[in-house]
Amino acid sequence: MLERYLPIIGWAKSYNRLTLTNDLVAALIVTIMLIPQSLAYALLAGLPAEVGLYASILPLVAYAIFGTSRTLAVGPVAVVSLMTAAAVGNLALQGTAEYLTAAIALAFISGVILIIMGILRLGALANFLSHPVISGFITASGLIIAASQLKHILGINASGHNLAELFVSLGEHIGDVNTPTLIIGVTATAFLFWVRKNLKPMLIKTGLNPRIADVIAKAGPVAAVAATTLVTYYFHLDQQGVKVVGSIPTGLPGFEIPSFDADLWQQLFVSALLISIVGFVESVSVAQTLAAKRRQRIVPNQELIGLGTSNIASAVSGGFPVTGGFSRSVVNFDAGAETPAAGAFTAIGIAVATLVLTPLLFFLPKATLAATIIVAVLSLVDLGALKRTWAYSRSDFSAMAATILLTLGWGVEAGIVAGVTLSICLFLQRTSKPHSAVVGRVPGTEHFRNVDRFEVEYDDKVLTLRIDESLYFANARYLEDRVYDLISSRREITDFVLMCPAVNLIDASALESLEAINQRLKDLGVNFHMSEVKGPVMDRLRRSHFLDEMTGQVFLSQYQAWCSLHKNCDSKLSQCAEQRAAAN
Amino acid sequence: MLERYLPIIGWAKSYNRLTLTNDLVAALIVTIMLIPQSLAYALLAGLPAEVGLYASILPLVAYAIFGTSRTLAVGPVAVVSLMTAAAVGNLALQGTAEYLTAAIALAFISGVILIIMGILRLGALANFLSHPVISGFITASGLIIAASQLKHILGINASGHNLAELFVSLGEHIGDVNTPTLIIGVTATAFLFWVRKNLKPMLIKTGLNPRIADVIAKAGPVAAVAATTLVTYYFHLDQQGVKVVGSIPTGLPGFEIPSFDADLWQQLFVSALLISIVGFVESVSVAQTLAAKRRQRIVPNQELIGLGTSNIASAVSGGFPVTGGFSRSVVNFDAGAETPAAGAFTAIGIAVATLVLTPLLFFLPKATLAATIIVAVLSLVDLGALKRTWAYSRSDFSAMAATILLTLGWGVEAGIVAGVTLSICLFLQRTSKPHSAVVGRVPGTEHFRNVDRFEVEYDDKVLTLRIDESLYFANARYLEDRVYDLISSRREITDFVLMCPAVNLIDASALESLEAINQRLKDLGVNFHMSEVKGPVMDRLRRSHFLDEMTGQVFLSQYQAWCSLHKNCDSKLSQCAEQRAAAN
Repeated sequence: MLERYLPIIGWAKSYNRLTLTNDLVAALIVTIMLIPQSLAYALLAGLPAEVGLYASILPLVAYAIFGTSRTLAVGPVAVVSLMTAAAVGNLALQGTAEYLTAAIALAFISGVILIIMGILRLGALANFLSHPVISGFITASGLIIAASQLKHILGINASGHNLAELFVSLGEHIGDVNTPTLIIGVTATAFLFWVRKNLKPMLIKTGLNPRIADVIAKAGPVAAVAATTLVTYYFHLDQQGVKVVGSIPTGLPGFEIPSFDADLWQQLFVSALLISIVGFVESVSVAQTLAAKRRQRIVPNQELIGLGTSNIASAVSGGFPVTGGFSRSVVNFDAGAETPAAGAFTAIGIAVATLVLTPLLFFLPKATLAATIIVAVLSLVDLGALKRTWAYSRSDFSAMAATILLTLGWGVEAGIVAGVTLSICLFLQRTSKPHSAVVGRVPGTEHFRNVDRFEVEYDDKVLTLRIDESLYFANARYLEDRVYDLISSRREITDFVLMCPAVNLIDASALESLEAINQRLKDLGVNFHMSEVKGPVMDRLRRSHFLDEMTGQVFLSQYQAWCSLHKNCDSKLSQCAEQRAAAN
Repeated sequence: MLERYLPIIGWAKSYNRLTLTNDLVAALIVTIMLIPQSLAYALLAGLPAEVGLYASILPLVAYAIFGTSRTLAVGPVAVVSLMTAAAVGNLALQGTAEYLTAAIALAFISGVILIIMGILRLGALANFLSHPVISGFITASGLIIAASQLKHILGINASGHNLAELFVSLGEHIGDVNTPTLIIGVTATAFLFWVRKNLKPMLIKTGLNPRIADVIAKAGPVAAVAATTLVTYYFHLDQQGVKVVGSIPTGLPGFEIPSFDADLWQQLFVSALLISIVGFVESVSVAQTLAAKRRQRIVPNQELIGLGTSNIASAVSGGFPVTGGFSRSVVNFDAGAETPAAGAFTAIGIAVATLVLTPLLFFLPKATLAATIIVAVLSLVDLGALKRTWAYSRSDFSAMAATILLTLGWGVEAGIVAGVTLSICLFLQRTSKPHSAVVGRVPGTEHFRNVDRFEVEYDDKVLTLRIDESLYFANARYLEDRVYDLISSRREITDFVLMCPAVNLIDASALESLEAINQRLKDLGVNFHMSEVKGPVMDRLRRSHFLDEMTGQVFLSQYQAWCSLHKNCDSKLSQCAEQRAAAN
């Protein structure tokens, strides 16, 4: 029981020297990768650079205690940082104390929401984010993030929460481009793209172990940071208009009490909820992928608690919302991390960096950080998914396209809310006109097929309709319509059979419709039967009065219905039927 | 084509003297019933009495031209009048010109929405109102309406849009009770309840034809109106504090141009949408019930246009939102109406009443109208439905209970929106953890059953999971979890079969999950197969790359999968299998 809520107890027992060595190596590599990332994502969220470092210390320790993934690397991530900027940007100006207060409160509220969801075991809520919606959302977010970083590459001021605003703002300031910044920005971006695409294959060609080559290639941003910082320092580029990170307070973050202002909480609640769910979905899918590779399991509801405590840890140490990062976790996994202790060691690494490295980062150009963000997020953009989804399903495509368009055109929150709403509506719409077919018997068999598509036997007195969907409120009236349409044109019918092999649920609305159908058929002198009703559906029907009022019978199989209503069951087949009955 | 949009062309062709006589008789009876109703529902909506009459003339003519039900009687109805009062009451004070303007605009916007829905064939949108939600909503509305009329029975002032507000307000004014009003109100209510319960059986006992007895019993409100008006006139009760209808402008309504104020439209839009959908659902279910009794059909999408034009007709003649009424339509049907012409004749009847009867209504006490409303709506209250729904399904019960509680406690719009949202969430929730079972073969047959519940054959190398639900975003991750859970504890598995006899849909999210499952099983050296995939689902899978990447096969039947993976198909059964294959 205790282990369920404190997964650390599980793995700490078998912790040994070998695990320690592996975790330490992984932590070292992740630390090197995380330093520029944490600074960059703080920049993306509109926050001072040190906030990124603060969000990469305590949250990692909290996740190591409460998280269930052995290899997930928690910290600031691109999409959540963008959502933070959008949420907080509505309430305060960047650079003000209110902005930081709101970002910290956002992490805290998000943490509380995640923990409550975890305790109430509401991990399934994340399922409402369908794959096309999350994929479209991440593509659109990647594009917005890349666009939002262009100002740093160009060395100008610009702002906006959607593509249109961003481009208008960029256009207004395009005259102010700073040439040294542009040179650094473009060079860094080109270098990072080259590293991502070509360095790893090159290293492998020289005979390097592919895993080590991969880790070296992932350290590209660190090289870019070091090189551009040195160049800026040496040529005094900060005096020529190149914006640098500047002085970062040295020392560990102090303990912060987040704001408990009711107004602020109310204003941030919806944003915090969206950030929680998006962060959770992202994180769980990475964690699940990595866990499956080692035949390990993660516990989604406990992950909510792990991520929740991480966010609260972030808030109380002056950080902003965090979640499990994709590329970082993959590096952690590939570098051989075996337990969440690797995360705790990474936290120590970042803490040390915060204590001793910050003076070295004074001359780090913001353009370099922007370049690392752009290269990282463009890999998230997957426009090919639009094409694949179009080929597979028009409904899923529309949900994806709507999410992308609204996110780009209106902002992240509008995009995700519209996507979720649309995908739910489209699903209900799809099931609201279920496939159904009038069936007849394949001669000489126990099988029943669509009369329009097969040569089958049927007569004018008994009509059998097979319905291929659960019956519930969205299609209950359609079923009534379908039955009345069939009956009103066939006056000679005496028996109607509803065949339900694929009906997994009959809800109260559908029950009402079945009662109405039964009553109307009764008025017309037609008996209403059902066949192949599943066990759980039948159990439920028994709890209503419907079966008592039913004018006909419920048959276990359609073949039994046929035999009983036609009284001409042939003996050869009844053998098969007996076998079946035994099986039932 | 023209007939589709103008159903009048259909029935006018065969119109003859007999149909005319029947329609005229029905129209006369409905007119007598509609006069007090239209006045009462105007009162309920907070509007002058004549507005109720205006809403009962042109709308009926419009429906006769565009509607598809032969017997639906359109006009003001209780629930829609209550919703009108709630919507308009937010924007203006009762009795002001703005209040009337807003009510007229509401009818117009509602008409436009209905017509657009009809043209776009969106009648299916009404399906989102599940039966428990609509039933709970009507019960709660009935209670609120009855409570809102108590002030007229007591002769005091009170107002409110939910039960709490109403009772607080009644409590504040309870000292002002007017005794003559109370006597009239209580007597009228008691009389009407008696008429509804006892008059019809009594008349039948005296040997009267039951249909005629029914029509006479339905005329109870007219008798109450006549009697209390005479008493009030004779004893000058209006001078003793009994509130009367007062002077109603004599003459037909003039042509009104509804307000096109953009602000007003925006404020009324959501209310108009809810009124449209609730009114449509109510109306269509009555129309469908009556049509089915005569083996006639209605066309729901054309009904939207019929009701839409009725509402626009109401707006341009100074009326408020209308729809098809339940009790009135039943009377129309029972009185022998054969075509929508009966509605047009009713309109003439009401027009004549507006021209000549209005002076006679001066002394009609408002308490009598309140009594007719209370008796009418209490018959809509069905608290027994709560018990029946509880027995059948906890989910449906919670949707119904939430609708009732929110409608009573917060107001009609909050109630219906919460009910719809909750029933959609509960449906998704129900399908998010679908029933699934590991199955084995019933020895000596082609049948496969749950290994936990039946004595079946299975081995350690081939694992078959039957899933009993369509696969879509809400349960895609659950499926992944279920498969990984099964696989991670069974290392000897070489083949995994997903049996899909009840899978009617695989959406893009579920496809992604199947791809992930296939990939992870591949990493673990397990082949992934599927069996009994339905035709339309298979067609869709063929449009993706999934089938190419799949490590295993898709089998037509689970028995084929068994034979192929076990290579021990016995010959006796393969006969049956051949029969089946022929059938497939």
